[in-house]
Amino acid sequence: MSLSKKPYRGTRDFFPDLMRLRNFIFQKMSLVSEQFCYEPYDGPLLEDIELYLAKSGEELINEQIYSFQDRGERTVVIRPEMTPTVARMVAQIHREVAKPIRWYAIPNLMRYEKPQRGRLREFWQYNADIFGAGIYGQVEILQLAVSIMLAFGANKDQFEILVNDRKFVDIVFSNVLKLNDEKKNLLYKLLDKKSKIPDEKYQNELATILQDKESINIFHQYTNLSSFSEVTNFIESLPPENHHLELLTLFKKIESLKLSEFIKYDPTIVRGLDYYTGLVFEIFDKHPENRRAIAGGGAYANLLQIFDEQPLEGVGFGMGEVPLTDFLTTHNLKPDFSKPKADYLIAYLDDSAEELAFYITDQLRLHNSRVELFFEPTKPKKVFNYAEKKDFEFLIMIGEEDQKNDLLRIKKLSTREETIKKTKDFLEGLI
Amino acid sequence: MSLSKKPYRGTRDFFPDLMRLRNFIFQKMSLVSEQFCYEPYDGPLLEDIELYLAKSGEELINEQIYSFQDRGERTVVIRPEMTPTVARMVAQIHREVAKPIRWYAIPNLMRYEKPQRGRLREFWQYNADIFGAGIYGQVEILQLAVSIMLAFGANKDQFEILVNDRKFVDIVFSNVLKLNDEKKNLLYKLLDKKSKIPDEKYQNELATILQDKESINIFHQYTNLSSFSEVTNFIESLPPENHHLELLTLFKKIESLKLSEFIKYDPTIVRGLDYYTGLVFEIFDKHPENRRAIAGGGAYANLLQIFDEQPLEGVGFGMGEVPLTDFLTTHNLKPDFSKPKADYLIAYLDDSAEELAFYITDQLRLHNSRVELFFEPTKPKKVFNYAEKKDFEFLIMIGEEDQKNDLLRIKKLSTREETIKKTKDFLEGLI
Repeated sequence: MSLSKKPYRGTRDFFPDLMRLRNFIFQKMSLVSEQFCYEPYDGPLLEDIELYLAKSGEELINEQIYSFQDRGERTVVIRPEMTPTVARMVAQIHREVAKPIRWYAIPNLMRYEKPQRGRLREFWQYNADIFGAGIYGQVEILQLAVSIMLAFGANKDQFEILVNDRKFVDIVFSNVLKLNDEKKNLLYKLLDKKSKIPDEKYQNELATILQDKESINIFHQYTNLSSFSEVTNFIESLPPENHHLELLTLFKKIESLKLSEFIKYDPTIVRGLDYYTGLVFEIFDKHPENRRAIAGGGAYANLLQIFDEQPLEGVGFGMGEVPLTDFLTTHNLKPDFSKPKADYLIAYLDDSAEELAFYITDQLRLHNSRVELFFEPTKPKKVFNYAEKKDFEFLIMIGEEDQKNDLLRIKKLSTREETIKKTKDFLEGLI
Repeated sequence: MSLSKKPYRGTRDFFPDLMRLRNFIFQKMSLVSEQFCYEPYDGPLLEDIELYLAKSGEELINEQIYSFQDRGERTVVIRPEMTPTVARMVAQIHREVAKPIRWYAIPNLMRYEKPQRGRLREFWQYNADIFGAGIYGQVEILQLAVSIMLAFGANKDQFEILVNDRKFVDIVFSNVLKLNDEKKNLLYKLLDKKSKIPDEKYQNELATILQDKESINIFHQYTNLSSFSEVTNFIESLPPENHHLELLTLFKKIESLKLSEFIKYDPTIVRGLDYYTGLVFEIFDKHPENRRAIAGGGAYANLLQIFDEQPLEGVGFGMGEVPLTDFLTTHNLKPDFSKPKADYLIAYLDDSAEELAFYITDQLRLHNSRVELFFEPTKPKKVFNYAEKKDFEFLIMIGEEDQKNDLLRIKKLSTREETIKKTKDFLEGLI
């Protein structure tokens, strides 16, 4: 029986066209991150399971992680997310380095999911985090997220960032609605799935959690908030001890920095029962046929505590290449990577020119050109046929006559224009 | 109890200095590969165990792979090498695409090893392969290997490529020494470990495998071969049916292309019982204190057969970033990546300049500069202290007075030279 040629379920074979797209995406993400002075980092593929038991969500642990015992009987996990790793790494060095700490990574992650559109078992996720920068860190992370989207050519009609604040939601749930932790958790979960369930089911579940009419009314007031000014008014209507001033400052900065055309308030963004303690946000595709999250993140105050370290506030976000690629495809922002691009194809018509062909190839490569040598003496027709399958800019074909006269014919393939030069002049003319 | 901050044994936390080094290494490898028109690809992290059972060496399967059952009870392996994956992928497409196929990748791999110098459990390995190019493919792969080493600044006194040919060795073992498969395998294993065991042990094992003096003499003749011309003479002394003409052609091409200053013949290079069927080679560090292999590879004729596909000859090699880094360190070829590099640090001395500072930061980033904004109004002294911890080229500090007069002071930090410009002129002057 012959072996299967297919990749493992939920993973991809990155053939060159797909790999060029992946490189394009990673390079753009890295470029913008470096413009923001975020420093690159990476962690190990495997982590001790304890790291995730401490902070990750239940669903991730129980249903989604790839965990196993190694040959030394340690239970390890293929990383399903990057935040626990970045927390572990920052915990090692935060006392010695200058704040703020700005880091980014593009790790491969694995989750045992049922493969579907926008979701695979193996995927790459851009992660950016800033530690020790307070409200400014939140502003900068939002700026960075916007800048990455703009770098891919997206505009404000194509994406939006929906923001909320866990501290604000907690004030509403604990101080206004006076709910206990159990009910608060149920409400968080309900908000998280609001857009995915029918309204009737939503209303019924709400009525089960909040039994009195007064509470349901207040909750509806909360879920109807849809702009910074409405949230501001709502907050200002509360007794002063419930004012969440940091959020109002964040709104003001978002407006003064002209980010508000990209950023909207959304009361249903709560990011589950994750480790977030302040700002939470998701980047959404605005296209009606691809109305999904491309990225998500938020602020967290307590990530280092599991390592017995002093609290260090951070804010960060993750952006998967799978939903981003769907977004780029939906909005026709994906360049064509089907053909490789190259500068020169060098061919020779008889054995005697082989050495010269190798030499010119070598020299061009040393001048940073992408050059392919057509192996074996060949005929012009064969070379032209071959050249059409790839995107060569120039063709140099070396024949006996030209070699004798020390001439090179450099043909621009798009126009078929030919330049004839002395070999030495051509090589010296290269930058 | 608090969680451990350490990474899993045999893996590394890539803090930014180490990550910048890794990026530098990968970028150089990619650049040279693209100059040779090799196309990028990648495969999945996990593969079905069957893929390795079919071709990989025993040691790899029995002692080194990370394998486990997924939640669907499939036995999967974290890839320990890339060649089986590239064979699986090429098997899918080789009938439709133009030959030669030239591919490269830099995957992360895992092997359950006892961590030691030059060897870790998680590592990255550059892989390049060319399919369907015969003898020319062998020459090009050797050229590519040399070019990568040269791109890192290495010279012929620092590294060498040791080559041999499995077909030639097979001719010696089968046709000259008339050995059966079992004895041939024992001899291959013995050659493989020759440099790692004491000479006495080597001679004893040899005498056990080859019992007659005549055979031992011939074998010593073989192991004493140390140059292309000696091998050529040895081959020409054999009866014509045992001539391995392809190897002699390869030697001639290596010489005519001036690669012979980097490439030496070595009879002990056989690459174990791997899938190689022709050329085999290893790149060695020549430094006496780091006398180890940096890379290894060879030609294989039968890799696609396990997929029931027509044979397609290929040649490739792998280069690990761990031994390469040891090489670069040994020869002082590793640039200093301890500090991040950035173009501008922007600071402001009072609240009123905050918006302008954000605006200038944003504009500079749009012009592809790496810019950090110093958060919060601050004092000059604090900014200078901070600037020294990172490698900023310029500092722009915005004060009330300058803001009123619409002036920017751009200070070059290395010389403390200051240029004063109108904000508009400065922004328009950016390329």
